[in-house]
Amino acid sequence: MIDSDRTLLRALFDAAVESAIPAPVLASYLPRPAKGRNVAVGAGKGSAAMAAAVEAAWDGGPLEGLVVTCYGHALPCSRIEIVDAAHPVPDTAGEAAARRMLDLVKDLGPDDQVIALISGGGSSLLSLPAPGLTLADKQAVNRALLACGASIAEMNCLRKHLSAVKGGRLAAAAFPAATVTLYISDVPGDDPAVIASGPTVGDTTSLADAREVLRRYGLQPGEAVMAALNDPANETPGPDDPRLSRIGGRMIAAPQISLEAAAAVAKAAGVEPVILGDALEGEARELGKVMAGIARQVRRHGQPGAAPCVLISGGETTVTLRGKGCGGRNVEFLLGLADALKGAEGISAIACDTDGVDGAAEVAGAMITPDTIARGAAIGRKLSDALEQNDGHGFFGALGDQIVTGPTLTNVNDFRAILVR
Amino acid sequence: MIDSDRTLLRALFDAAVESAIPAPVLASYLPRPAKGRNVAVGAGKGSAAMAAAVEAAWDGGPLEGLVVTCYGHALPCSRIEIVDAAHPVPDTAGEAAARRMLDLVKDLGPDDQVIALISGGGSSLLSLPAPGLTLADKQAVNRALLACGASIAEMNCLRKHLSAVKGGRLAAAAFPAATVTLYISDVPGDDPAVIASGPTVGDTTSLADAREVLRRYGLQPGEAVMAALNDPANETPGPDDPRLSRIGGRMIAAPQISLEAAAAVAKAAGVEPVILGDALEGEARELGKVMAGIARQVRRHGQPGAAPCVLISGGETTVTLRGKGCGGRNVEFLLGLADALKGAEGISAIACDTDGVDGAAEVAGAMITPDTIARGAAIGRKLSDALEQNDGHGFFGALGDQIVTGPTLTNVNDFRAILVR
Repeated sequence: MIDSDRTLLRALFDAAVESAIPAPVLASYLPRPAKGRNVAVGAGKGSAAMAAAVEAAWDGGPLEGLVVTCYGHALPCSRIEIVDAAHPVPDTAGEAAARRMLDLVKDLGPDDQVIALISGGGSSLLSLPAPGLTLADKQAVNRALLACGASIAEMNCLRKHLSAVKGGRLAAAAFPAATVTLYISDVPGDDPAVIASGPTVGDTTSLADAREVLRRYGLQPGEAVMAALNDPANETPGPDDPRLSRIGGRMIAAPQISLEAAAAVAKAAGVEPVILGDALEGEARELGKVMAGIARQVRRHGQPGAAPCVLISGGETTVTLRGKGCGGRNVEFLLGLADALKGAEGISAIACDTDGVDGAAEVAGAMITPDTIARGAAIGRKLSDALEQNDGHGFFGALGDQIVTGPTLTNVNDFRAILVR
Repeated sequence: MIDSDRTLLRALFDAAVESAIPAPVLASYLPRPAKGRNVAVGAGKGSAAMAAAVEAAWDGGPLEGLVVTCYGHALPCSRIEIVDAAHPVPDTAGEAAARRMLDLVKDLGPDDQVIALISGGGSSLLSLPAPGLTLADKQAVNRALLACGASIAEMNCLRKHLSAVKGGRLAAAAFPAATVTLYISDVPGDDPAVIASGPTVGDTTSLADAREVLRRYGLQPGEAVMAALNDPANETPGPDDPRLSRIGGRMIAAPQISLEAAAAVAKAAGVEPVILGDALEGEARELGKVMAGIARQVRRHGQPGAAPCVLISGGETTVTLRGKGCGGRNVEFLLGLADALKGAEGISAIACDTDGVDGAAEVAGAMITPDTIARGAAIGRKLSDALEQNDGHGFFGALGDQIVTGPTLTNVNDFRAILVR
């Protein structure tokens, strides 16, 4: 029974990842070739896989392009150049790639077409400071905003106005060529303006908004930053900007699409799927406690679904560092869940990052079963110690319960499934 | 629209509390009068209200008794004596009451009957140390266990073995009289052995278990405590103890019963109720973040219910103290929820303690609406500051969004409802 539960949980995760892999799905979203040049650009963890899928599906003559992805996520392509750069902290490789990308599209004409391949991680991979600024200037502002608790929206406003490529500038540079963007979403709400800081989407914020954010938090960045934020040349194109009159976009993969794919597998196996959210947030171990309570409700009261039932969710939790172990969001969630379940009968779970890398290790995530705590204790591994030390990978590694996929070359955030018999 | 949402949310909470009030429901659970003496005993926040309901429903001749409740929760009774004591830190009034309660039942015979009225809070209200121990001895052990992170089960094991009344001892003292216990549950799983530390239920733990807990955490309490834990006279009666052969129990109110009552009101108003759990735990503000994600899922994807939908849950969260404000679990949850929702359209919520007292103030809880953050800002109250300072009561008081009921004289834990249009 346990073994078949493990098999089912793994099948749910595999279905979630598979539905986010560009190759099988991208062809149906590809635009028709333009009469003139067809240029693929893009950035993100999944963008090399998207480029390879474009090449494989392309039957429209000449195709060229340049796409940047992070180290280890490249795939061999013959017509679109793939460049490696650093994530999550930008490096000069990404900066050089962004500059070349702008050069590649800036002379296109009305008969040409840009196919932009945008996925999570693209914001740091495609990081070109506005004229007069350095990467270090931008990073200093980022750090300061993080430290004072600015929201993602506020940070994105600053990022876009200190950049030469984000916030619609890539598409504006390509005008009068048309730009069709294919997205893999890893952000709550799947807003195209947020994925990779929206290089091909009009920006609804202004330089004045960016200055107001700094005022709000009492931040005083260096002169270069203030000069950039007062230079009208750094204004981002808004949604009504004529240079963005020829843009279009299609979401080819997203957290919700992956959760639905997993739900379909559960249903086929006779297990009721309950999707709780594609963008759940919060401290990982606390989400574990909350989910333990919902799983117990399924067993005791048949709510919000009747057992056998699987509680499915996506999104990105946070982990407050306490110890020196090797961990990640998903294994931390599982430690918290197992700790709260205390071996409760009939409840097992899987939690993995769909990109195949959960935090500190090249491990996607792990599984728990009702005997997780007991099996740990039997080999001298206390779950409470692992929780204390943020040592999820150490704990589940010792138990042989890690899920290892290698980089999946896509990313629709975390995937969690709790099976209740 | 907002006004009718407020009205509906308040109606849900009122329904939850009403279904936990002893007076209307208790009569149908009352045992038939015994031939001999009928003696009501009990302890808890709701026990005076239960005693009054017993008197009102009683038609079986002589009735006597003694019940202890906390200061402010007493009700006038004519036949059952009501005693006030301190909660959550025991005092000598509770100790004296426990002693008199044991005296009251110890000479009963086989034709007599004890009606025990047990509700949350009873554990500290009915606190009689085992012979040779003082309240201070017990409290020192409790504090030490808390500090080293012992589980509730481990703490209860110690509590029961250092007590002269908990862990089935009250019912054992009443033998050969029968004991029928009426419960109001405020604990996850509604386990009678856990509510008020089970004074009328057999204990599945032993003195050896209690000593093992101390060993596990390396605790070395004073000589008096160790002597008590080595004295066979302090062993609790187990479930098979012959002195517990005449016990029975009925749950007259519980978190799940209250959540279902609220769900029925929602349904009648054309709003789909989704009950997520009657015992959700975790850090209050983190539960707020998680619930914000689930509420968003309702709006965007119609899961786990289609809007209009109300997400209902119970249980008891925790609050890590950070600031010097005036707060409680429920208002802290609401601050976290509103902070994560960031004014999201169509989502409002209520969170209250069903006993009418949420933490530091005589306020049951509060409500949030989509304009909560904006209304706060307009009067110079930043929600993020309130969160920083654990100042939920201060914040919602300034906004006029507190829910004030006064003590409800019952307690089935917290009640939370999030309405999504």
